[in-house]
Formats: sequence, structure tokens, C-alpha cells
Amino acid sequence: MQKNNSRPMLKIIFLGGVGEIGKNMVALEYGDDILVIDCGSTFPDINMPGIDLVIPDPAYLLDNAEKVRGIVLTHGHEDHIGGLPYILKYLNVPVYGTKLTLAILDSKLREHKVDADLNVVKADSVVMLGKSFRVEFVNVSHSISGSCALSITTPIGIVFHTGDFKVDFTPIDGNVINLNRIAEIGRQGVLLLLAESTNIERPGYTMSEATVGKSLHNILADNPEKRIFIATFATNVHRLQQILDLAVKFKRKVVFTGRSMLNIADCAAKIGELHFAEDLVIDVDGVKNYEDKELLIVTTGSQGEAMSALSRMSTGDFNKIKLGYNDLVIISASPIPGNERMIYTVINNIYRHGAAVIYESLAEVHVSGHACREEMKLMHTLLKPKFFIPVHGEHRHQHKHAELAMQMGMKASNIIITDVGDVVEVTPKTISPGDKVTSGLLLVDGLGIGDVGSVVLRDRKYLSEEGVLVAAVSVDKESGAVNAVELTSRGFVYVNETENIQSEIEEVIYSALAKFDLKSLGDYSGVKNAVRKDIKNYVYKKIKRSPMIIVIVL
Amino acid sequence: MQKNNSRPMLKIIFLGGVGEIGKNMVALEYGDDILVIDCGSTFPDINMPGIDLVIPDPAYLLDNAEKVRGIVLTHGHEDHIGGLPYILKYLNVPVYGTKLTLAILDSKLREHKVDADLNVVKADSVVMLGKSFRVEFVNVSHSISGSCALSITTPIGIVFHTGDFKVDFTPIDGNVINLNRIAEIGRQGVLLLLAESTNIERPGYTMSEATVGKSLHNILADNPEKRIFIATFATNVHRLQQILDLAVKFKRKVVFTGRSMLNIADCAAKIGELHFAEDLVIDVDGVKNYEDKELLIVTTGSQGEAMSALSRMSTGDFNKIKLGYNDLVIISASPIPGNERMIYTVINNIYRHGAAVIYESLAEVHVSGHACREEMKLMHTLLKPKFFIPVHGEHRHQHKHAELAMQMGMKASNIIITDVGDVVEVTPKTISPGDKVTSGLLLVDGLGIGDVGSVVLRDRKYLSEEGVLVAAVSVDKESGAVNAVELTSRGFVYVNETENIQSEIEEVIYSALAKFDLKSLGDYSGVKNAVRKDIKNYVYKKIKRSPMIIVIVL
Repeated sequence: MQKNNSRPMLKIIFLGGVGEIGKNMVALEYGDDILVIDCGSTFPDINMPGIDLVIPDPAYLLDNAEKVRGIVLTHGHEDHIGGLPYILKYLNVPVYGTKLTLAILDSKLREHKVDADLNVVKADSVVMLGKSFRVEFVNVSHSISGSCALSITTPIGIVFHTGDFKVDFTPIDGNVINLNRIAEIGRQGVLLLLAESTNIERPGYTMSEATVGKSLHNILADNPEKRIFIATFATNVHRLQQILDLAVKFKRKVVFTGRSMLNIADCAAKIGELHFAEDLVIDVDGVKNYEDKELLIVTTGSQGEAMSALSRMSTGDFNKIKLGYNDLVIISASPIPGNERMIYTVINNIYRHGAAVIYESLAEVHVSGHACREEMKLMHTLLKPKFFIPVHGEHRHQHKHAELAMQMGMKASNIIITDVGDVVEVTPKTISPGDKVTSGLLLVDGLGIGDVGSVVLRDRKYLSEEGVLVAAVSVDKESGAVNAVELTSRGFVYVNETENIQSEIEEVIYSALAKFDLKSLGDYSGVKNAVRKDIKNYVYKKIKRSPMIIVIVL
Repeated sequence: MQKNNSRPMLKIIFLGGVGEIGKNMVALEYGDDILVIDCGSTFPDINMPGIDLVIPDPAYLLDNAEKVRGIVLTHGHEDHIGGLPYILKYLNVPVYGTKLTLAILDSKLREHKVDADLNVVKADSVVMLGKSFRVEFVNVSHSISGSCALSITTPIGIVFHTGDFKVDFTPIDGNVINLNRIAEIGRQGVLLLLAESTNIERPGYTMSEATVGKSLHNILADNPEKRIFIATFATNVHRLQQILDLAVKFKRKVVFTGRSMLNIADCAAKIGELHFAEDLVIDVDGVKNYEDKELLIVTTGSQGEAMSALSRMSTGDFNKIKLGYNDLVIISASPIPGNERMIYTVINNIYRHGAAVIYESLAEVHVSGHACREEMKLMHTLLKPKFFIPVHGEHRHQHKHAELAMQMGMKASNIIITDVGDVVEVTPKTISPGDKVTSGLLLVDGLGIGDVGSVVLRDRKYLSEEGVLVAAVSVDKESGAVNAVELTSRGFVYVNETENIQSEIEEVIYSALAKFDLKSLGDYSGVKNAVRKDIKNYVYKKIKRSPMIIVIVL
């Protein structure tokens, strides 16, 4: 396609954050300037065994590195900043974010030994990136402090990106979402809205974070004698602050457990986002010096993560704290879709120790950080965008968010639903799909980034389901005689209901080899294939199993 | 412990169905008689890769086979009958169940080529098993026809097992749950109640199945031009009947797709549980002869199962039906905990074809088959049991059900929460835990039952996360010289960020071998271990990966 290049158009490039949850990364490109919004990571799903982390493929940015003016961050959650330690190694550009966002990022970068140009901004700050992008940070409510929407003035109009948001009129730190400024921007005229879609399936409004404090207060008041545990997200600093304040009120010492809990509490305290007297918090080793009723243990593991403190307590593998009849565990979180099985296993195991668990949503011990439908409508109403692209959601969320916009009067032709790799071209009058760019997932496995691909994952999945059977054959090159055959297996059992078929498989191998004149062969690949095929057919016929078969001829 | 054997006591033996969802199997033992209730199976969880099916370990029953008088079935769901094709091979006893239950079981048994003594009963039927057990089948509502509770009169009193139930005052087939009989049994006096706990976390009442028909009616009326798909559980015959009736009303032909849908529809029609005119249902090959608005496609895959018809349609792999813009897919089911990710992936992929999807609970296109809290209270109130054991739930459900019973006035000491393998001993005046019996899970993998154990699973999990590296070494026995070294890997990548370490690993192997005098060795296990250790350390140092390493010396 020939494009009209005389008047440059604005391109919105989706490198992540659409079509599936997590790994947010969107770029805006105009003329010679590229601006990147967020760079997240996610944990691998069950189809990516052994993978440590998944990040968006930054190929397009690396290919156009000279144009990239900077990366702006909406907030400090993993799915918005987790990819930076990997990508900043190859893309040395300034990064902009609020205090807590950069404090969390900085601790990650130091762990990865990556230097970067970090620039702290405040809500209402304005940053010029290149000649094309004037970025204004706008305070919004979310489940982590210092969350911002971005109002980006481009040469053809304003692009408004909500980041992750909800509308909390009574936030813990008093910084109410800046609806006045959002309304003002809406009056100026918004060309394009990118708005998050996480809770589009939920009617009504998200409750205020303050309601969680009230629920926790009631539980603490009702259980004065018990040792109390609260599992929550480490990054929810406002919830941590409420818990610390309750500990003061109920004369309990606070113990932080779990690596990320200790790390974030430390980060947040240092930059003044978390306030508590020094003697309020004790080390986990100090637990033995206090009675149950004097303790409030704040822990990671609200998603049932296998190595988290709570998960290890539930299986009895956490040496310093053992659960028992006088313990009450509050799960102050909801399962992220896909984590249900893990967290319920942890809850069942906690019950097995005789401890009580409070976890259901009815108990109001958790509120979401994302806008429900009425809050989304408020955002659309204040901003009145000309064009709309739903982001931060799976396909189903994006479709439902598009339906909501249409119910509010937007034309279907002014809305585009995108997938990772899509480019949307915007002019003052039009919005349309452009050519796709290189995109996808980079898998981080040990020190390798991106070298584990689909073949390796397919093999791993196959290995996990069927195991492996190795047949090694030693052949005398001169005589062509078979010196030895050895079978080894892992994750695969030879035995069927009545017999052990190991020796039979060896016979199958000898018969297969007998069909070849091994002396005159230069290349054994034909032999290997024949042996593999005969073993495969035999094993399947006998025990209906199909291990991965590796044949080695030496 | 010495037990008083002069007056035999009643033992309740939990071989499945408690502590975790699925694989129901409970046995009652009194004197020389054992009665088995249900024998279910479940699909493997993510920690059991490659496993086809999981069934309860029947060791205790096989060890006491001469006492087992029969197996009574509450209803025909997999988690209540799925283990029978495996267990009936070894335990040849009569089986009792209602018509649909045995029709589904019979089709399974024929597939497995197992003969069994199947005895059809009706609601209100009474069966004597041995001298100790008089079993009365009591009609209850559930998401499959022919569901029964069991009122079991034993020499020491009545044991009432609810089976899976809900209270539906307007069931599709008109067979209302027999509350009058349940009330009567309660008046006679119930010694022990075993009641299901699935929906204990849900307040209020479960909606009637009839409400689903109304919702589907409205959707069909609102979308007269679209091709409509409904994904639901094949065994929910009442839902199928409602769909068939709607198809008649809206002049659409019905197409059943998916193996279990075709199978159950056939079973149910044959025994008169499903009624429809012959020309209403067409084969999937006939789809091309009809317009979109003339079709109603009923499919499996409501849980996102990988090989189901709906899942294959969503990825474009179902040749005879391709999804497009004029399609509307209704997911008439809720995700079973753990299946969320799979079904949402299917929904996202359906949206990618431009089709619309209706799936949320708000749309009322599904109701649960299980009692909510108020219905459970009704059951407790009518039966007024002396003792109570919550069953059919995970630990958390059992605990919450015990709390509900206590809120209704039952003493904590009259309630026992059990795990698989537990035995509960009951006398007219006491209930107490007894000695545990052999129990656990049997894993079905291909033709093997129970031969795949924890070591194999651990290996499979390890293989899936790290892959395998095979080092084969050929040694000349006479000279001790190393003839050849060959490396092969699957699911593991040699390359780190800057180099390919394959040849370096070969050098590591040669160095390790050089430390041994290979000529004089009879046993190579020391050599193998040394080589393995050196490769492991080297690979981890270079690329932070730990493949499973298999060393073969020939």
C-alpha cells in the first residue's frame, strides 16, 4: 500500500496489552518521534513450562531506536514495568514515572545491573518528548500509589491514555482522581481515547479502598485473641498503610514476610509513601517473643504462588511460622483469572492446620483497583473522544468495552479493536488499521531471552505428557556389528498390566538394525528413523503410550 | 487401639469425594457387609501431565472384596460413575442406579469391554444389600435426570446421603424433589447426614432450570437472522430438552456436535429421557444445506476443553463449521474452578472470528445444579440429623458447611470433617475418627492403571520445565579409549546470549572422562555421575539452566 507521506500521520503501535491480559506496551509514532507507554511483563501460562517471565517483543523499537524519545510509565505494577530490566539493556532512552513507580523500577534495575536514565515526575507534570509529544501526567486512583493517566498532545490532537484506573472519592492518601482536569481536557477536545477494559464485565462502581480498612477493623475487633495473618499484594501501599494503622490501634506488632513484601515495604517507606513508627514492625525472627494476640503478619501469596510465604506456611515448609488452631488468615485479594486452583489449594491446606480463613468477596476484605462499568462511562462522558481504542484487556473485554462506547453514542466506525502487532493510523478525521509490525512474546528462561521458541516449548510439553525413552546403540564402524544397545527412560513407564516390555523393545531395536548394512553407511539418519519408528509403533501397540523417542547411534 | 468388637459399629470409609472436588466414593461397612456409594473419576490437574484420568484407589475394597454387596449410584455424572469401568474389572458386584445413570455407564462399559451386573432402580425403589443395608432411592433435583439421594437404613439407624442436589420447584420433567419423603425420613430420625457442599459459599437459592429456557428463548427471539450455537454439558438432559423445544418453536434444525454430546443425546433419546421428532435433528454434514437462521448448533466445550468441538471451532480447526460475523455463541455453563483460563481463551478466539459471544452469569444462560446455602438449611431442617459429615467439596467447603450446621444448632462434637482415607466410626450415641485405610489416587495413563507414580510425574514436570540433554559416550572396552561423544537435546537450548556452548560441553565431558581409567572399570555408574555433575555445573554456570541430564556409556 502506498501511503500519503506529505502530511505525517499518527501511528499507534500495539506491542502488548491488547488481546490478552498483561505485558502492556503501546508506542505512539509521529514523524521522527516515537513515544513508548509502559513496558510490562507477565508470568508464563501453563503452555510455557520452565519459562521465568514473558515480555513484549521490542523488535520494532530496536529497529527504530534512533526515533525513540523516551518511555513514560503509568504506574509501578509488573505488567507495566516488568519488561524494562530486559529492554533497557538494548534501548538506552530516558524513562519517566512517579516516585513509587521509579523506586520499584530502580530496585529491579539494580538487581539486573542495568543503568538507566530515570526521571521522576509528579501528577500534573508535563514532559516534552521529541518535537511531537507533550505528555501530561494526570492523577488517577488505582491499587498502587502514584498511578497516572497520560494526556498526550500531538500535532494532530490529544491522545488520552487512562492507564489503569478507578474512581475512588475517599482514597487513603487523600489524592482524589483529578476529574476536574480530565473534564477540562475533554472540553479541549480529545482525538483518541485509549481506555483500560479490565472490569468491563462488572456493573456499577468499584468500592473505595477505605471499605477494606473498615472490614479489616471489624475482623480484628472480633478476634482479639487470635494471631492474624493478612495476605495481600505487596504493591498495594495504601492497603499496607491501613494495615499498619490498624496494628497501632489494636496494639499488635507487624511482621512482613515474603521477598517482595519486604522489598516494596522498604522502598515505599524510604520515599515516604508508607508511614510507621520504627518499633511497630518486627522481624520474622522476633515472632517467638510475642503472644498470638500481639501479632499481625502481612504476607505475600494472595494468589497462591508456589514459593510465596503463605503457600509455604500452608504446607508447613515455612520454618519460622507454623500455622495452628489460634490462627486466622485473611486473603485480602481476589484470584487473578487462572490462579483460582492455586489459591484454593493454599486455602484448603491452611484449613488442614486447624486455622480459620476469611477469603470470600462477601467479607469485603478486598476491592478491585479497576473501574467498573459506571466509572468507565464517567470517563467516556468527561473526555468525549472522537476515536476510541479499548486497551488493557483480553479480546472479550475489548469487545464489551466497544459495545459500551457504542451504547453511549459512539459510531462503530470510530472504534478499533486491536491485537498485539497491530498498528492504527490516525489523522484528525480518520482512524484506520495500518500495516502490522514485528511483535510477539519474548520468553525469558534463565539467562536466555528469546532463544526458547515454539519448538522447544512443544518438545517440553510433549516430554511432560509422555516422558522420554532414549535408545543408544553402539556400532563397530569396521565390522558393522552392533556392540551394545542401552535403553534409558524418564517420565515413562515400560510396564503394562502384565509384563515389562523393556527386553522386548531391545529385540525390536535389533530387528530394525538387522535390516541395514551398518558397515557401509556414512550417515545413520535413516537407521535412526527406522529404529525410532519401530519402537514407537511397538510401544503404542503394547501399552498405548507415545514417549518421545531419541535414538543415538555411536 | 483395641476396639470393642462385641457390638459391631458402622464405619463410613472415605475413599474419595472429600478434601478436594471430584472422584466421589464412600463406603459403608457394618459387620460382614460393605456398601459402596458412587465411584467417580476426574481429569488430571496441571501437576499430572500426560495422565488421562484419575480414579480413587480401591485397594480397601479389593482387600475386602468378599464383603462388598454392591455399588449404588446417586446419578450419572463422571465424578460419580467415571471410575467404574476400571474398578468393575477387579470387583464383580451388582451396581444399582436409575435409568439414565445406567445407560451412560453401560455405554462406557461397552467401550472398555467390561461386563457388569447393572440393576435399574426408580426413585422410591428399595434395595437390600447384605443383611445390613436397606437402601431407598429418593428423587432430588440436579443438573442431570434421575438423580437420587440415598436413605440407608442400617442396624444402628438411618444414614442419609444427599448425593448432588438442589431444590427445583419447577423442574423440566415435572419430577419435583421429594421433600415430603425427606421430611418423613427426618421424622423417623436420621442418625447421620452426609450432605454435599459444592455451593456452600453461595447465599440464597439456586435458580430453577426453567429460567435458563426463558433466557435462551429471549436470545433466540432477539436474533432471528443469526446462526446460533449453544455450548453446554452433554449430560444436562433437561437443558437439551429445553433447547430442542426452542428449536421447534423458532423453526431451526438442531445439530449436535462433539463426541459426548452425540453419545449422551443418543443414550437419552433411546431410553425416553429426551423427546424430539426425528427430522428436528440433522447431521453436521447437513449444515451446508440450511441458512444460518435455520440452525441451532448444540456443542460440547463449555469448559474450553482442548479437543472439544467448540474449542476446535474457535481455532478454525473444525472443518465442517467455520465461525463468522453472523454467528452467536452462547456458553450455557459456568467455568468449573481451574478451567477459567481455557474457556476464556476459547471465548477470545471466537471473538477473533467476528462472532458474538454471550457468556456472563448476568445473562442467566446457566444455573448451577447444586444447592445454595438456603437450600442446604432446608435439608438440615427437614432431616434433623444427630451426626453430620459434610461431603462433596474441598476442605474449605466442608469447613463452611460445618459452620452452617453449627449456626443451625448442631454441636461441633457431632460433626466430623474428613479427608480421603479417613474412616469414621458411628454408634447410636457416638461418632469418632477411626484408623485410616489405604487410599489415594490411581492415575490412568494409556493402558496403565496406577503404574505412573510420583517419581514419574516428578520427572515429567522436570522435563517440561527444563528439557533433557542426553550425552552418549562410546568407550572401547579393551583400550579404554573414548570412541565418540554425542550430545542430543529436547526442550533445552544450548545457546546463551553470545555463544553456542555445545562444543564446550563436549570438552567438559572429555575432561571428566580423562579422570577415570576406563579400561579397568566394570561398572560405569561412577563415571556417569561424574560426567553428569560436571555438565550440570557447567551449563548452570554459563546459562543458568538445569536440564535433566542423561549420561549413557556404551
